[in-house]
Amino acid sequence: MLKKYEKAGELVSIKGMLKAREAISHYVRPTNLVYYSEISRLVGCDAFVKHENHMPTGSFKIRGAINFFHTIPKQNVENGVLVSTRGNHGLAMAWAARWFNVPCTVVVPENNNPETNRIIEGFGAELIVHGQDFYDAQSFCDELVASAGYYYVEQGNEPEMLNGVGTMGLEIFEDLSDVDVIICPIGGGAGCASLLRLAQAVNPAVEIIGVQAERAAAFYQSLQQGDWVVIDQADTIADGLAARSVFQLPYTIMKDHIKDVVLLSEEEILQGISLALETTHNLAEGAGAAPIMAALKRRDRLQGKKVVLIMTGGNLDRVHLEQALRYSSPLMSSKDLK
Amino acid sequence: MLKKYEKAGELVSIKGMLKAREAISHYVRPTNLVYYSEISRLVGCDAFVKHENHMPTGSFKIRGAINFFHTIPKQNVENGVLVSTRGNHGLAMAWAARWFNVPCTVVVPENNNPETNRIIEGFGAELIVHGQDFYDAQSFCDELVASAGYYYVEQGNEPEMLNGVGTMGLEIFEDLSDVDVIICPIGGGAGCASLLRLAQAVNPAVEIIGVQAERAAAFYQSLQQGDWVVIDQADTIADGLAARSVFQLPYTIMKDHIKDVVLLSEEEILQGISLALETTHNLAEGAGAAPIMAALKRRDRLQGKKVVLIMTGGNLDRVHLEQALRYSSPLMSSKDLK
Repeated sequence: MLKKYEKAGELVSIKGMLKAREAISHYVRPTNLVYYSEISRLVGCDAFVKHENHMPTGSFKIRGAINFFHTIPKQNVENGVLVSTRGNHGLAMAWAARWFNVPCTVVVPENNNPETNRIIEGFGAELIVHGQDFYDAQSFCDELVASAGYYYVEQGNEPEMLNGVGTMGLEIFEDLSDVDVIICPIGGGAGCASLLRLAQAVNPAVEIIGVQAERAAAFYQSLQQGDWVVIDQADTIADGLAARSVFQLPYTIMKDHIKDVVLLSEEEILQGISLALETTHNLAEGAGAAPIMAALKRRDRLQGKKVVLIMTGGNLDRVHLEQALRYSSPLMSSKDLK
Repeated sequence: MLKKYEKAGELVSIKGMLKAREAISHYVRPTNLVYYSEISRLVGCDAFVKHENHMPTGSFKIRGAINFFHTIPKQNVENGVLVSTRGNHGLAMAWAARWFNVPCTVVVPENNNPETNRIIEGFGAELIVHGQDFYDAQSFCDELVASAGYYYVEQGNEPEMLNGVGTMGLEIFEDLSDVDVIICPIGGGAGCASLLRLAQAVNPAVEIIGVQAERAAAFYQSLQQGDWVVIDQADTIADGLAARSVFQLPYTIMKDHIKDVVLLSEEEILQGISLALETTHNLAEGAGAAPIMAALKRRDRLQGKKVVLIMTGGNLDRVHLEQALRYSSPLMSSKDLK
């Protein structure tokens, strides 16, 4: 069953990413890779943050969305595209669909953040609220595809989505050619898989470290069990990590090559948001802040290295921001960590 | 006495800004101008945020700092440069001095944010802590110049600093050629003056609206009194607005042309930070969030217009962030505003 994804995975390549960049560069600018002395001091490495949170719609997903619309044959999407999301994927697809003049329908669960919903509608997408959680919304999409003929965009299984996302990797290697380690959160797995594929082509010595929530550790369990794993619940405050499995396509790319996945507790995720605010003065969502915490937890083996932390997104809502700030300053307590 | 500044002001021009961009483009990327549907809805206009907070060192000041070092004759700074600051100016100068290989000494007052101090030192600058407030630090600089022969960089009175800062305006006009209004905070006045000078050259119909804190309303008072005003205290939580006067050079540029300066209370500044978090998912410092609040206060005359809000910086410390979050959601209360 994974075979067809292995074949699709061959389409994910540095060549595909370079082509993707030709398209993407007409719509968005590269993001900054910024050296932060305070994170470097805490971890004992040269720490750089890749600011994907600065992208329009606030996450790296927009790279994949643009390249998807750029490469998909027009006739495939003439009835419009369908997306199920809790946030960043839907925001990115709605944004890009408007530019490419393709009707976009976004299905969100009932408890979804109303701010996010309004912004998706603000981009001109049709919003459908359905079901208790993301997986209810997803099942509903299958019904809609059958009845209305939409093209359902399963983000992590679209090779051109991964090529789009991989353009952040091109920028990293161009800005910091001697990078040693890249730390990237794993939700659906597209980001991490595309960075891995690129590193294999540019410099296989570069290590890609994944980060997951303890409460949504599907890929971590896959590594343990040597097989693709779907877990029963993915109940973490970090939306970008709250996936019950990685998509099959990134799984086939990552499975024999990602050796280390750092797991974070819910407390550590919140502490990471707080630490990101203090050290970078950026609002990061849970997944976006996770690489900073992961670096702290792996600091023993990161000493002296050049480490890139992917701040994948910044779409944190007020409730979680307030929760994060309840944690006493990690910059203070970090003295204990040393 | 203002005469010499009027003469210096002639050096601030679209030509100077285009030249500045040639230099700056080697060091930093343009920032994004992002449309926000939620701010647009609240104000009743098309609202775009110019994300200067995404610049390395977290503010627009880096544009001026790079162009200063690029244009200053080497022999003028062979003994190093001297800067007095509470934050963004010092961060930018320390960052740029490192790239241009010029020794940089930064004087900060005793109560300065320790995070900021550490970051300045992280860029390799020498840090001197002196005096109770910014103005003590500034006076101490005069002594140091006399004794050590430093070049003291009075940021707002350096024409090439303003040309550097004006490059953000070039980017605005390129991304949104039919902009109607630009709203910019006024601290020392360099940002607002450079945008004004550029608008006069590109499209004089574009209105530049200033924003100041009620508790640091030096330029506002200048407009009332028809003369350059220095106030006794500039006691606002927004560091970027906490100036007892605008610099003379931007004053001479702005005095007959800026017609509207919106004043914000300390509560409104905090509310603006909170509103920026909710509508843009960006951490803005007080001055950086001020244009959003100013737009809300002027919404009667902004209806239907294309409005650019300069988010000048994002270097907000934790204490003020927590204060800002005490304000109930402005998105909720904004219903009353309508």
